[in-house]
Amino acid sequence: MAKYIIIGGVAGGATTAARLRRNDEHAEIILVERGDYISYANCGLPYYTGGVISEREKLFVMTPEKFNQTLHVDVRIATEATAIDRAHKTVTLVERKTGKTYTESYDTLVLSPGAEPVRPPIPGLDLEGIFTLRSVPDVDGIKAWLDMKRPERAVVVGGGFIGLEMAENLAHRGMAVTIIEALDQVMAPIDFEMAALVHRHLRDKDIELRLKDGVSAFEKRGSRIFVKLASGDEVPTDVVIFSVGVRPDTKLARDAGLETTPQGKPGAGAILVDEHFRTSDPNIRAVGDAIAFRNPLSNEVGIVPLAGPANKQGRLVADAIVFGDDQVPAWKGAIGTSAAKVFDLTVAATGLNEKVLARIGKPCVSVIIHPNNHASYYPNAVPLTLKVIFDPQTTRILGAQAVGYDGVDKRIDVISALIRKEGTVADLCEFEHVYAPPFSSAKDPVNMAGFVAENILQGRSKVVSWKQFEELRAKGAFVLDVRTREEFELGAIPGAVCIPNTELRHRLNEVPRDRKVLVYCGVGLRGYLAERILRQNGWTDLYNLTGGYKTWSAAVE
Amino acid sequence: MAKYIIIGGVAGGATTAARLRRNDEHAEIILVERGDYISYANCGLPYYTGGVISEREKLFVMTPEKFNQTLHVDVRIATEATAIDRAHKTVTLVERKTGKTYTESYDTLVLSPGAEPVRPPIPGLDLEGIFTLRSVPDVDGIKAWLDMKRPERAVVVGGGFIGLEMAENLAHRGMAVTIIEALDQVMAPIDFEMAALVHRHLRDKDIELRLKDGVSAFEKRGSRIFVKLASGDEVPTDVVIFSVGVRPDTKLARDAGLETTPQGKPGAGAILVDEHFRTSDPNIRAVGDAIAFRNPLSNEVGIVPLAGPANKQGRLVADAIVFGDDQVPAWKGAIGTSAAKVFDLTVAATGLNEKVLARIGKPCVSVIIHPNNHASYYPNAVPLTLKVIFDPQTTRILGAQAVGYDGVDKRIDVISALIRKEGTVADLCEFEHVYAPPFSSAKDPVNMAGFVAENILQGRSKVVSWKQFEELRAKGAFVLDVRTREEFELGAIPGAVCIPNTELRHRLNEVPRDRKVLVYCGVGLRGYLAERILRQNGWTDLYNLTGGYKTWSAAVE
Ligand SMILES: Cc1cc2nc3c(=O)[nH]c(=O)nc-3n(C[C@H](O)[C@H](O)[C@H](O)COP(=O)(O)OP(=O)(O)OC[C@H]3O[C@@H](n4cnc5c(N)ncnc54)[C@H](O)[C@@H]3O)c2cc1C
Ligand SMILES: Cc1cc2nc3c(=O)[nH]c(=O)nc-3n(C[C@H](O)[C@H](O)[C@H](O)COP(=O)(O)OP(=O)(O)OC[C@H]3O[C@@H](n4cnc5c(N)ncnc54)[C@H](O)[C@@H]3O)c2cc1C
Ligand SMILES: CC(C)(COP(=O)(O)OP(=O)(O)OC[C@H]1O[C@@H](n2cnc3c(N)ncnc32)[C@H](O)[C@@H]1OP(=O)(O)O)[C@@H](O)C(=O)NCCC(=O)NCCS
Ligand SMILES: CC(C)(COP(=O)(O)OP(=O)(O)OC[C@H]1O[C@@H](n2cnc3c(N)ncnc32)[C@H](O)[C@@H]1OP(=O)(O)O)[C@@H](O)C(=O)NCCC(=O)NCCS
Repeated sequence: MAKYIIIGGVAGGATTAARLRRNDEHAEIILVERGDYISYANCGLPYYTGGVISEREKLFVMTPEKFNQTLHVDVRIATEATAIDRAHKTVTLVERKTGKTYTESYDTLVLSPGAEPVRPPIPGLDLEGIFTLRSVPDVDGIKAWLDMKRPERAVVVGGGFIGLEMAENLAHRGMAVTIIEALDQVMAPIDFEMAALVHRHLRDKDIELRLKDGVSAFEKRGSRIFVKLASGDEVPTDVVIFSVGVRPDTKLARDAGLETTPQGKPGAGAILVDEHFRTSDPNIRAVGDAIAFRNPLSNEVGIVPLAGPANKQGRLVADAIVFGDDQVPAWKGAIGTSAAKVFDLTVAATGLNEKVLARIGKPCVSVIIHPNNHASYYPNAVPLTLKVIFDPQTTRILGAQAVGYDGVDKRIDVISALIRKEGTVADLCEFEHVYAPPFSSAKDPVNMAGFVAENILQGRSKVVSWKQFEELRAKGAFVLDVRTREEFELGAIPGAVCIPNTELRHRLNEVPRDRKVLVYCGVGLRGYLAERILRQNGWTDLYNLTGGYKTWSAAVE
Repeated sequence: MAKYIIIGGVAGGATTAARLRRNDEHAEIILVERGDYISYANCGLPYYTGGVISEREKLFVMTPEKFNQTLHVDVRIATEATAIDRAHKTVTLVERKTGKTYTESYDTLVLSPGAEPVRPPIPGLDLEGIFTLRSVPDVDGIKAWLDMKRPERAVVVGGGFIGLEMAENLAHRGMAVTIIEALDQVMAPIDFEMAALVHRHLRDKDIELRLKDGVSAFEKRGSRIFVKLASGDEVPTDVVIFSVGVRPDTKLARDAGLETTPQGKPGAGAILVDEHFRTSDPNIRAVGDAIAFRNPLSNEVGIVPLAGPANKQGRLVADAIVFGDDQVPAWKGAIGTSAAKVFDLTVAATGLNEKVLARIGKPCVSVIIHPNNHASYYPNAVPLTLKVIFDPQTTRILGAQAVGYDGVDKRIDVISALIRKEGTVADLCEFEHVYAPPFSSAKDPVNMAGFVAENILQGRSKVVSWKQFEELRAKGAFVLDVRTREEFELGAIPGAVCIPNTELRHRLNEVPRDRKVLVYCGVGLRGYLAERILRQNGWTDLYNLTGGYKTWSAAVE
């Protein structure tokens, strides 16, 4: 009878234990969890804070009792694994409440210890009223504080998805919220001009957003906390959510001498595993937020601290353990498909973004479109912004980002599926979507992004990003606005000349032939129509602004 | 200068003309349309009938004037193409209002004449108050009649997606609606037990549904129409929408001697084209509802009368014409991805269904699951039913169907994308979805369907459909209900013995070892857990009911 011990009882760990049982009814399975709870919904914690999820029990997908009843797993909560004796294949367990310490032997040990909030050495970070959020006790602490103190002002440090979800939920409780973010944008998985749409929305929702400013210290004065910033500014608040990222919780693994990623970079100290989640010790495997693996698109080794991968890995590792590595598909690495609701917006991304692609020096081209989520003539159509990044050599899709309302998650899901199948621009064009007016248009946004990309690949269109546009404009290119005169007058790019695309064929003589020409419209479509007319009338040094005025104004303003 | 004529000015035709212009600024392009309108939203017509789309102008994506202004296309409305002289490469055009007849020469002719409603020789079909729906004049006629007569009762003949959309929209106008359908189910693209969910919903919405009964005649008595049925029943009504399918509108093509599919079967008379939409005449191409092409999954040649394919084909054919066939990706055939809103439900499908697979004799296995659309703990989670059909030999995904509320279209879109990339069950398991509580669960329904299918492929689970279940139950199999006693008492499959899955390990002796055992639960999950316990304790002649009691009760009751 095999004996399996799993350290960590939430996403990766509980799933591993559950699948192990289904694979091997007769094994001895011990699930060890330091905290008091297993199988809880980390991802629901921000919404429980805000009262969107009102019942605390809802956070618990499984209780230890139910887990044991259903899956016959020996669940040991409030028990910490403090050491691994790899030579003797034992692990030291400490019961938190009694201090009782004992060892337990294993045939295979699975580590799913997760990650912990990063806490840099900022003076005052330990002050009362400053919280990080990872677990049920964390949220209990935050909720108790909020219910007791009824604070009016909150500061969220960090504009990642947990920070934004917390900002939304604190605002939902009626608090005035300031977000402080050291970078020039929130939401690292998306690029700047996409994040700019989120910035605008946050400000519309009365969130104070302080970008490019880091926290240098926290100070308590009277009943208030003062958040001191690198810029010298000071933000008074009643409560702080500190959420600047996570790092693998791998002391146990490192103490046991398992190979981990080198210190220094974000995600450092993650357990290195192979495609069957084997660590450097053949009897120990690891999954979840604590592991590092190669990104199949960038080839960089890193962490992907997300619940979807943790759950899938848990299932796969249980199969590899019981059925053998050669019986189980190899883990191919997560491409980092993720989403967050930010007030009314949905923000989603998959694959690589331009920032990462620039860092690894991989050539890429991006298109940005702003189609409606469904047929414009059907009620409640709303626009979404979709950016797709592709490799101009191989035509492979490298990544995609979307910001909008309904239907954002759908498009990123589809593109994620295509990327995993080594999809190309042609696959975007050919994608056969479900179409009826409430769901899409006859050409889905995914198709449309493909068409725009294909035109570039074929040399029928040349696009520039808002950033390249600004550079070329500064160098004196001719800027042609092909929107209507009314649109032009409501706001245009400085220096632009307006020739509506419907008049262009008769006014070609107004477009210089001896200068670089930058054309733009509202979203890119009419710019493209104008570009086709000009290009076939001899213009070659001619570029269309991808995403049009809509993207430009969000990014530049 | 090339000269192109396109016959048909809506989905396929208008798109072809638009892309031709972008590809070739200097060509002469003539778009010929028999009706008074081009570029209108056929798919919006039912919603305009119901007043959901309130403004008539919204139906027109482009007017002839705007089309000409923007794309410099010579649009000739109210003009019918009546003959093609292939030898001289001319087409005869008749101006409907003046009767003026003339010919126009072409270098390439593109046909996108669409399809027309099937009108079998049923006595009385021409009575006043009986309508078919294809075009703007059709909907104008229906709306005028409804506004004038204010009828109370309507009959819709045909339970396809147009019929159901019309039923919903007539009900939306306050009418009592009866749907008459000759088959035992509505919505041909989905299988019976999935359609059963739609039947239930229609009845919940007070639609009278008469299945397995055909119309034998219509009779006018007084101001009412009486719909006489094959069963002998008679349904009195004030208005009839007759919507039993479409057939290619190809008289022009057939008269010109172009090759079409043989008469006799549904979709007969469709223009045969190759992968670049070439008809049997090298100077004539055709796209849209009027063409027949090979289905890449079934290898059957047939029509796919949907707007998505028509639009994509229009774009491709324009490329093939201007850039050459060898410069353009070959059309691979549509797999029939489609959706309809039916009152509160979304019904969507992709690929092949079991009915088609049985007809072509292709072996397949199906799984049915009923997961929530997003995390159960997040507000407003609603279940959806997802059926995935796969090839047990190659593990390729053959088709999928879903019925539910939010998130149905998303899952079918993803599976459609995977099918087009020759996806397998492993791809369903590995699919990396965007996950945050408002959008999905850590394991997406697509993953879950993959897991269930993988367990079957690996022999770890054996499933039966509700139909096989009923056959085996009739033959005396032991039926084990592993739900709780409370669930069991609220309704169970006749003859079942209840042993809750949490008690099964201690009550194995109550399960016979010498009989076939059929296990079931609410949706299939606990049945699977029980199956794993039993199988690993020696039971082999053991089957889990896919979709559980939920599917069984919808299909059997
Ligand atoms: C607020 C919040 C919101 C989130 N939202 C999303 C989201 O929307 N989408 C998404 O994809 N992901 C989200 N995540 C991330 C997701 O929760 C994690 O990716 C996932 O839980 C990782 O699973 P894991 O098993 O690796 O770690 P965890 O689920 O964190 O489980 C690790 C467990 O191991 C225990 N442990 C650690 N060391 C020991 C030890 N030595 N002995 C005993 N026990 C130990 C810990 O106490 C912990 O309970 C969110 C996370 C948080 C905190
Ligand atoms: C009520 C309704 C709802 C629909 N809903 C959906 C949906 O939700 N999703 C979906 O995917 N599809 C839907 N469709 C189907 C979709 O509209 C068609 O698949 C699509 O329009 C086909 O494009 P087409 O160019 O082949 O034909 P059409 O769009 O029908 O255009 C053909 C045109 O050719 C003209 N024509 C024909 N012969 C001649 C001639 N000899 N001379 C001059 N002109 C001629 C006709 O007048 C017609 O206007 C719906 C259709 C209808 C009627
Ligand atoms: C609760 C928890 C232990 C469940 O693990 P699990 O049993 O693997 O997962 P589920 O309950 O979803 O069940 C999935 C299993 O049921 C099977 N199944 C699901 N629906 C089925 C159906 N209709 N018919 C047959 N089988 C079905 C699946 O195939 C799968 O079994 P497999 O892995 O052996 O193939 C684990 O997911 C957990 O702890 N979750 C909470 C923590 C977490 O994920 N947090 C982060 C996100 S907030
Ligand atoms: C209106 C109609 C003529 C438009 O045809 P179209 O010009 O090909 O389509 P769109 O207006 O959607 O524009 C798509 C073009 O703009 C380009 N485009 C779209 N967004 C863009 C952007 N942001 N930047 C650059 N280019 C963009 C696309 O690449 C595509 O051009 P391409 O085909 O040359 O690559 C045609 O779709 C039609 O008649 N529709 C109504 C009928 C119908 O489809 N009915 C059935 C469904 S209800």
